[in-house]
Amino acid sequence: MTEKSPAQEPAAPTANIGVVGLAVMGSNLARNLASREGNVVAVTNRTDAKVDRLIEDHPEAGFVPSYSIADFAASLTTPRTAIIMVKAGRATDAVIDELCEVFEPGDIIVDGGNALFTDTIRREAAVRAKGINFVGCGISGGEEGALRGPSLMPGGSAEAWQTLGPILESIAAVAQGEPCVTHVGTDGAGHFVKMVHNGIEYADMQLIAESYDLLRRVLGQTPEQAAETFAEWNRGDLESYLIEITAEVLRHVDADTGQPLVDVVLDAAGAKGTGSWTVQTALDLGVPVSGIAEAVFARSLSSQADVRAASRDLPGPASAPAVDDPAGFVEDVRLALYASKVLAYAQGFDEITAGAKTYGWQIDRGEVARIWRAGCIIRARFLDRITEAYRDQPELVTLLTAPVFVEVLEAAQQAWRRVVSVAVAAGVPVPGFSAALAHYDALRSERLPAALIQAQRDFFGAHTYRRTDREGTFHTLWSGDRSEIAAEA
Amino acid sequence: MTEKSPAQEPAAPTANIGVVGLAVMGSNLARNLASREGNVVAVTNRTDAKVDRLIEDHPEAGFVPSYSIADFAASLTTPRTAIIMVKAGRATDAVIDELCEVFEPGDIIVDGGNALFTDTIRREAAVRAKGINFVGCGISGGEEGALRGPSLMPGGSAEAWQTLGPILESIAAVAQGEPCVTHVGTDGAGHFVKMVHNGIEYADMQLIAESYDLLRRVLGQTPEQAAETFAEWNRGDLESYLIEITAEVLRHVDADTGQPLVDVVLDAAGAKGTGSWTVQTALDLGVPVSGIAEAVFARSLSSQADVRAASRDLPGPASAPAVDDPAGFVEDVRLALYASKVLAYAQGFDEITAGAKTYGWQIDRGEVARIWRAGCIIRARFLDRITEAYRDQPELVTLLTAPVFVEVLEAAQQAWRRVVSVAVAAGVPVPGFSAALAHYDALRSERLPAALIQAQRDFFGAHTYRRTDREGTFHTLWSGDRSEIAAEA
Repeated sequence: MTEKSPAQEPAAPTANIGVVGLAVMGSNLARNLASREGNVVAVTNRTDAKVDRLIEDHPEAGFVPSYSIADFAASLTTPRTAIIMVKAGRATDAVIDELCEVFEPGDIIVDGGNALFTDTIRREAAVRAKGINFVGCGISGGEEGALRGPSLMPGGSAEAWQTLGPILESIAAVAQGEPCVTHVGTDGAGHFVKMVHNGIEYADMQLIAESYDLLRRVLGQTPEQAAETFAEWNRGDLESYLIEITAEVLRHVDADTGQPLVDVVLDAAGAKGTGSWTVQTALDLGVPVSGIAEAVFARSLSSQADVRAASRDLPGPASAPAVDDPAGFVEDVRLALYASKVLAYAQGFDEITAGAKTYGWQIDRGEVARIWRAGCIIRARFLDRITEAYRDQPELVTLLTAPVFVEVLEAAQQAWRRVVSVAVAAGVPVPGFSAALAHYDALRSERLPAALIQAQRDFFGAHTYRRTDREGTFHTLWSGDRSEIAAEA
Repeated sequence: MTEKSPAQEPAAPTANIGVVGLAVMGSNLARNLASREGNVVAVTNRTDAKVDRLIEDHPEAGFVPSYSIADFAASLTTPRTAIIMVKAGRATDAVIDELCEVFEPGDIIVDGGNALFTDTIRREAAVRAKGINFVGCGISGGEEGALRGPSLMPGGSAEAWQTLGPILESIAAVAQGEPCVTHVGTDGAGHFVKMVHNGIEYADMQLIAESYDLLRRVLGQTPEQAAETFAEWNRGDLESYLIEITAEVLRHVDADTGQPLVDVVLDAAGAKGTGSWTVQTALDLGVPVSGIAEAVFARSLSSQADVRAASRDLPGPASAPAVDDPAGFVEDVRLALYASKVLAYAQGFDEITAGAKTYGWQIDRGEVARIWRAGCIIRARFLDRITEAYRDQPELVTLLTAPVFVEVLEAAQQAWRRVVSVAVAAGVPVPGFSAALAHYDALRSERLPAALIQAQRDFFGAHTYRRTDREGTFHTLWSGDRSEIAAEA
């Protein structure tokens, strides 16, 4: 326990908010905070040099610097409120421990890193036991978002939100006049929703990548032509940040080679883990998120250099099918992308629904969609529709049946089927499109062959089954006389 | 520490192997052990009644019963060797702790439950610290296999294998004269391989289910006709236990209703978690296992009663495409099933390869395929081919390029594409077939749109990229003059 002796005490506390950790994200968030009316921002960092550098580079911010956690705490008005911006993991725990030594009951510790929500649940309980509030806050929008206005997904207690809410509202991105922040739910709810956001982002990017691949490999578009296609799409229903930057990226020419940059970049996509977390958590929750999983797998497959090299000459189709109507095919791909995107988002919201139920969170899904409309990577016109769908029907079982999306699916489903057929015939991989379509057709199916699977499980493992015509759990004596007996579930 | 005083000591130890936990699996394994020449089997259980019952029901087995762990240990010759057959989880830890108190250095504790391999790694280290051997042993084949001959996948030390090997060989299933057991690798290797076995089983069952669904929904076969189709397939390349029981299940008529049983069973498939573990572990290892994931998701989707009910009337294709040549379509489905199965197994073996590398196991993949040829649920003629493929090329990068499978894929790939196209046009979900095909086509692709994804990541998150034409890691100054800079990876 660090004792605060009067001799060490700095001048009276003046800062209403502090940031611990001044790497790019932390510095940018601190600058964002400082730029808003009413905020005075305390800053500190494990190494002093980063504090000095920030102060020097941004005198306009009026930062209150500290070189120890004790001084940092002393510079904050009560309830003390500090946002931790360090690398997720042990560093976070270390800073939390330090803050807990100098903070007092009623103060607020915010973790703005990309923590796994189960870590946040654990930390919240430990910190709350000391009477201190702990808020796991998802922050989306990257460095640029941190500086100019991110989408913010705080969890934690209602008490913490009273103090923290106005501060976060002051720095969040704004969509249609509303700040992109809401109190998502208690303890780990914010980081959970941020995780699913990232999983959806993986799916969205994969679907765009498949669309691009089809434009190139089936229609023979150049990257520049594909850029035009995406730019065109960005003026319609698909308008979104990711479609916009796709056009930017495809248009960019590598200065060294004069080739389109996309042809010079190694086709091995990296990943930072939150996509995997989303899928792993969905598996724990029993929620099918095939669109997100295929996106994660597509990245890992792209990085399997040895397997890819060995597999290159495996037999494929003799020739790609000719497309009679290129403009029609482009429109088909657009519709397939749109429909697949609806499915991927529906899967993500299914996971949020299941997570809320399992962890006891009251999550307003319309609010989640609302705060994703600006500041974050998946921001899109599309999210207005999801927001409205949940506002109209807060208890909606699945996004797919919101009237606005039924209309989209109605308009798109035949095109979607044509695109998958063409891709499959041409040998162009469309794991995201086809997983989404399979998910869609499975949900529509009156009966699924899961009945066969369940009967097989009963056959080889006596796992029992339920019946369609009456309650109970049953087992067929497969290696006996094959009569049916009532069984313990 | 329980002291063994001479007064409490029973007669001289006579059992060379013991079983702790006498539920169905444990009892059956004990009976299997007792039925083999040279084994004397000690048995004990938490509740005495189960011990008495087993002794009473099976006097022929000559079991050596004990009603305490101390007596149980005293009944074993050294090195004492005990197989724990209790519910995976805390019960396992409790029994391990008890055994460690009465066992001595050099003794062997075997966990025959379905433990998660990371638990096995942890337990092995803790038990080894006491000088005692710990072997996590995957056991496949269910109750029947435990009794008549399972497929056994033991990990642990070479020292333990010296004693345990001959005992396990005595009870294992036999394929072509060879017992279905091998020393898989150290610590958690056995449970890891068992986990992947189960994941492959999920995929295999899902692919069979999709085939059945197509026969019914596209061709209009009755369950009885589909049973004939599977029985026919079972006489060819697809010969396997799962295909065999599929025919049995489809043929079975429910006595109550006179309907095929498969039409009376609720189409909500259950799962016990090992499929999810396989996918979650693959995500940690960065291995794409889409075929296994889609199988797990298909089961969870089937159980989403509320989402399915809400989605039933979503728009689908106006009518299923007519199939001109039903016999030809049946053969196409057979080939699609075969090819998809090759892909799913290749993904499973990729996971074993990656796991071995990450955890430092020397796993002979040909031996793994060999011990799956009998005793377990996925036993199949197909596994002979995998065994041979790895015997011919122990360093094979991917199963797909083994000559025998190249031939299969060559023969199947056009049919596979036709089947996915028909399914997609008909609105019949084939998540497994299409995921496998997408995986196949992605591996064959000279270039993947992962390059676009990587460039997007650099655009919005400065995640950097590598280039195809030179070493290093690069970043384009997207919000600056768009020049490229060398970057820290």
